Amino acid sequence: MHAYRLHRGHGAAGLERVELDPPTITSPHDVLVRVQAVALNQRDLWLAEAPADGAPRTPCSDGAGEVVAVGPAVTRLRPGDRVAAGFFPHWVDGPPAPHKTAGALGGSGPGMLAELVCLPESAWFQLPATLDFGEAATVPCAGVTAWNALFVAGAARPGQTVLLLGTGGVATWALQLAHAAGLRCLVLSSSDAKRAAARGLGADQTLDRLAQPDWAPAVRALTGGRGVDLVVETGGRETLARSMAALRPGGTVAVVGGLSGWGGVLDADALVDGALRIQGVLVGSREMAEALLRFVEHARIRPVIDRRFPFTQAREAYAHLARGSHVGKVVIDLAAG
Amino acid sequence: MHAYRLHRGHGAAGLERVELDPPTITSPHDVLVRVQAVALNQRDLWLAEAPADGAPRTPCSDGAGEVVAVGPAVTRLRPGDRVAAGFFPHWVDGPPAPHKTAGALGGSGPGMLAELVCLPESAWFQLPATLDFGEAATVPCAGVTAWNALFVAGAARPGQTVLLLGTGGVATWALQLAHAAGLRCLVLSSSDAKRAAARGLGADQTLDRLAQPDWAPAVRALTGGRGVDLVVETGGRETLARSMAALRPGGTVAVVGGLSGWGGVLDADALVDGALRIQGVLVGSREMAEALLRFVEHARIRPVIDRRFPFTQAREAYAHLARGSHVGKVVIDLAAG
Amino acid sequence: MHAYRLHRGHGAAGLERVELDPPTITSPHDVLVRVQAVALNQRDLWLAEAPADGAPRTPCSDGAGEVVAVGPAVTRLRPGDRVAAGFFPHWVDGPPAPHKTAGALGGSGPGMLAELVCLPESAWFQLPATLDFGEAATVPCAGVTAWNALFVAGAARPGQTVLLLGTGGVATWALQLAHAAGLRCLVLSSSDAKRAAARGLGADQTLDRLAQPDWAPAVRALTGGRGVDLVVETGGRETLARSMAALRPGGTVAVVGGLSGWGGVLDADALVDGALRIQGVLVGSREMAEALLRFVEHARIRPVIDRRFPFTQAREAYAHLARGSHVGKVVIDLAAG
Amino acid sequence: MHAYRLHRGHGAAGLERVELDPPTITSPHDVLVRVQAVALNQRDLWLAEAPADGAPRTPCSDGAGEVVAVGPAVTRLRPGDRVAAGFFPHWVDGPPAPHKTAGALGGSGPGMLAELVCLPESAWFQLPATLDFGEAATVPCAGVTAWNALFVAGAARPGQTVLLLGTGGVATWALQLAHAAGLRCLVLSSSDAKRAAARGLGADQTLDRLAQPDWAPAVRALTGGRGVDLVVETGGRETLARSMAALRPGGTVAVVGGLSGWGGVLDADALVDGALRIQGVLVGSREMAEALLRFVEHARIRPVIDRRFPFTQAREAYAHLARGSHVGKVVIDLAAG
Repeated sequence: MHAYRLHRGHGAAGLERVELDPPTITSPHDVLVRVQAVALNQRDLWLAEAPADGAPRTPCSDGAGEVVAVGPAVTRLRPGDRVAAGFFPHWVDGPPAPHKTAGALGGSGPGMLAELVCLPESAWFQLPATLDFGEAATVPCAGVTAWNALFVAGAARPGQTVLLLGTGGVATWALQLAHAAGLRCLVLSSSDAKRAAARGLGADQTLDRLAQPDWAPAVRALTGGRGVDLVVETGGRETLARSMAALRPGGTVAVVGGLSGWGGVLDADALVDGALRIQGVLVGSREMAEALLRFVEHARIRPVIDRRFPFTQAREAYAHLARGSHVGKVVIDLAAG
Repeated sequence: MHAYRLHRGHGAAGLERVELDPPTITSPHDVLVRVQAVALNQRDLWLAEAPADGAPRTPCSDGAGEVVAVGPAVTRLRPGDRVAAGFFPHWVDGPPAPHKTAGALGGSGPGMLAELVCLPESAWFQLPATLDFGEAATVPCAGVTAWNALFVAGAARPGQTVLLLGTGGVATWALQLAHAAGLRCLVLSSSDAKRAAARGLGADQTLDRLAQPDWAPAVRALTGGRGVDLVVETGGRETLARSMAALRPGGTVAVVGGLSGWGGVLDADALVDGALRIQGVLVGSREMAEALLRFVEHARIRPVIDRRFPFTQAREAYAHLARGSHVGKVVIDLAAG
Repeated sequence: MHAYRLHRGHGAAGLERVELDPPTITSPHDVLVRVQAVALNQRDLWLAEAPADGAPRTPCSDGAGEVVAVGPAVTRLRPGDRVAAGFFPHWVDGPPAPHKTAGALGGSGPGMLAELVCLPESAWFQLPATLDFGEAATVPCAGVTAWNALFVAGAARPGQTVLLLGTGGVATWALQLAHAAGLRCLVLSSSDAKRAAARGLGADQTLDRLAQPDWAPAVRALTGGRGVDLVVETGGRETLARSMAALRPGGTVAVVGGLSGWGGVLDADALVDGALRIQGVLVGSREMAEALLRFVEHARIRPVIDRRFPFTQAREAYAHLARGSHVGKVVIDLAAG
Repeated sequence: MHAYRLHRGHGAAGLERVELDPPTITSPHDVLVRVQAVALNQRDLWLAEAPADGAPRTPCSDGAGEVVAVGPAVTRLRPGDRVAAGFFPHWVDGPPAPHKTAGALGGSGPGMLAELVCLPESAWFQLPATLDFGEAATVPCAGVTAWNALFVAGAARPGQTVLLLGTGGVATWALQLAHAAGLRCLVLSSSDAKRAAARGLGADQTLDRLAQPDWAPAVRALTGGRGVDLVVETGGRETLARSMAALRPGGTVAVVGGLSGWGGVLDADALVDGALRIQGVLVGSREMAEALLRFVEHARIRPVIDRRFPFTQAREAYAHLARGSHVGKVVIDLAAG
């Protein structure tokens, strides 16, 4: 089969297309899947730049495809089922724990940028007919992270106001989900085109980050001075203090691992005076993916794909994501190319 | 001023239109309001049929109007503000407690079917410009009960499925709220016209209660056998067991005081085997009303008013509600008549 | 190996001691355990009286023992580990779901009243050194049910007041746990000796059910009229209404499947007026067992064993439980006899 | 009456004992209390060092005493009742909000270091007979903050492990509460004497902060590598990162406003990778104080008072607190001196 191997430390240039022996079912719980589409995340860019650590491995965490074969102990799936795999293939439900979050796909676990992938049944969830494979490939990391940030960790309820930073993969997913769930959505972006795109996807108001570098008071003003209920924090080092300043008393910043290596100076006085909550969001469980997909199917949400690349152009896909001009997700289509 | 007095035990015939001295501000926290509209509830019918207990009193709990005057300690409101009063005028927020739920309007507390009403500031909440007074009058009991059942007691989240029984005031409010919040809505009714109305308001599927008197399996079938997440139980004695049978494991029946004097045989084995939850919903707090109204304003929800009667026709309004043919709420318009 | 088979429909007389081929490891995830002790539950009595449904099977859900051998894919356990098995061997954590609660031990799944039992790794949890095997055998059903009722479903917090009905296995576990967690404990029982035993285990007050058949007002009086926060309802048909009447506004009745086939007339007015919650408690997950055992180890809780019988006297153990004179659990000791 | 006025910017030397006209009941909801004891907080030291902002005012937030007179609208209290006042006299229950947290005592609101204080009924809660006035004076800020951090914001449940930093007022209250609630308590301190005192109050293990400046691994080792469930973070700038490193996945740092002006560099990768939660704790509501006191009465907890000073020695009391050698609270006894 065809697959990519990533030689870390070289960026997109470290991607090598190779021919490999296809994986086979070795455990009775295994499910073998023909991958049809893979979606990229910022994490894939960092890993491509990270120092080499051993032999090159197949990259990417987020893929969707069709079941080819199942082991004899598999009960939930059968050949022909349309599926995607959880970012953490062993986190089925409940809170996170080390044995659940070990073996993240495309990192310490197998990668999805290959024509065939074999994972235990616990990893896979079924797809609704309303999503094509490219759209479904955006679910495991970006979609589930947005769902967790909004409705699990964030516990948002209808009529609340959420602030979204930018139009990256998680922020765009969060915008579509929040809008469909009756949340009021404010979107901050430095690009006219991205703000227009956000309004088209349901943003109730947008703010120009360049025109208002100190944007927290402007956000508060849009809520009558009350502050927003939730910020999905994908911004990084420079935004945390402003996100906190934009919250109502008791509000939440859901921190998503959006941009590598960041952090910020935490103002403990602001944290205490506002009884604020800062919550790390670590993607999520398969149960969250399944709950998300019930909503996506019901509300007919089609995740935004900025651009699709054929399998032969994985390097170009990486480079496109790295440019940062996207709204929504960048997808590699294995069926094409 | 004009007002009604209810002589209990005579039904609608016990309503007497009288001229009374208008109330005045006596405490520094008082707010005097000119009532513009009152909405009726099943409870108003029961109280009209209940045995007399002392002198006749002004009936009705749910009213909206305009602030006329405020006491010197009032800080949140001023003359001209458009407001409605909470069903429990002392329940501001937090969980219920005896001192919060004493003095329900139109019961042990003052009634709203009068041109002027004086209550402490804590009772009143502001109205969004998107609702007229008649619509706003449906909020305190029916609207808040539906909100509490769905999003507080029921903790529903997007993509879940909720079952609503009939098209009464609470059920119709719940349908509008649930639909706008991205819940999948199933509505059970015995009337073709009501089912059609429910579909027009956002019901995803409707079930004919007459054609399927044992409707729980049909509800389950609509969820792929999984069961619904939540039932807003406004049905009464005959529906509790079926509502429980329609739930998924861990699901909730939110029991609303919809129809007097009911109850049902509780099957404890079903309760335990399903890890089910049965939750009594006691209207709600002013904070819930305010959260509801933020959502109503954002989602442009206009509550369904079945029919409006002028102030002179309060008896006719009661009689119309008693017939049970309504979809949504019955309102008395004090500005008219 | 030695084991029992239960011929249903004959009560304790249906227990037959037989010699069977020992189970062996057939899946890479299997764990083979030498059972050292089994604890009985009311459920075991019902199943012994239930109509026959096919061939006789090994009874009992609750056992503890020592790991003898593990399959090659097992990572958490090794030979020599002291373990017990969850009542639902596939419910690891998260909320209940059909695939998690299928195959309850001693029912549709394997039974524990045998010298050797083989179950998947997911079923087993490790035991603290502070419990012997007999004590540990009381954890899977009675202990976990009490834990779930108090701290998961019941969400009790320190200083709250809980009402416990009687001194059966779940009630006694609940008393020990609640007392050690800083809850105030009221115990209702019709026996002087059982009330004295309850006081010895930490009950703050006891009530005589015979002297006060209408006991709800007496319970309320002990809380200054406020009502208790939580009732662990193990009583059955006649107690539900009184348990509800004993609650504070917003309080919870955690209904445990304590006594077969019961139920009660649910007073919906009381449910709604009190904003009460009735919560079915379906034993619990392995994660709950592990949380319970951390507490048991920390607080040095030794569950109460009413009496231990040798393996040869399983019928006598069943008969003793059926008499109902016990305080705490009845245990069969496989190492003895 | 006698009272103190604080001239800000001069530390303890800014305290001036003066004779003032006693306050009187002016609103029908007022309650006049003879203060018997006042407890000091770190906040009182900061305010004494803060720049002057207008006329000197009566300092201190935490006091307990006896009701002298009540206004005609007061229903919960009467002369002779033993009471203390909430830190936020308008926060009765529910989540924080600006109108609830305005007017903190001893800051923008009235101060308690006076023989007579008049506040609205909403501010006051009754005291159990098990606490003397000095002990009760430690409840409003330190006690409620510890309660909120552990059981409201922290949602600790029995058997969990909590890490406490030092032996200040909040940490000592938290230790006593957590121990009585069945939590395992680890205490970090740089002083042999304080660690010994902590063990005497129920600490299960103590760690020497000087011997192990990088203490997070040592804390983890005490939990078998799992990490603690909760840290009550009273430490400040240098401890946040270590507190986070000591947590289990999904664990919580409850940040208390313990030491002025701090903050820390927040490592967002650690936050996300651990799915950690950082929660600001803003004292709490009167409902929390009442729940705390039910527990304190039940569990016979006597808060630790390091030293009591007579009313004439308020400056000495401030100076003693500033030295930092205390374990527990520093109290000024108005009945003495």
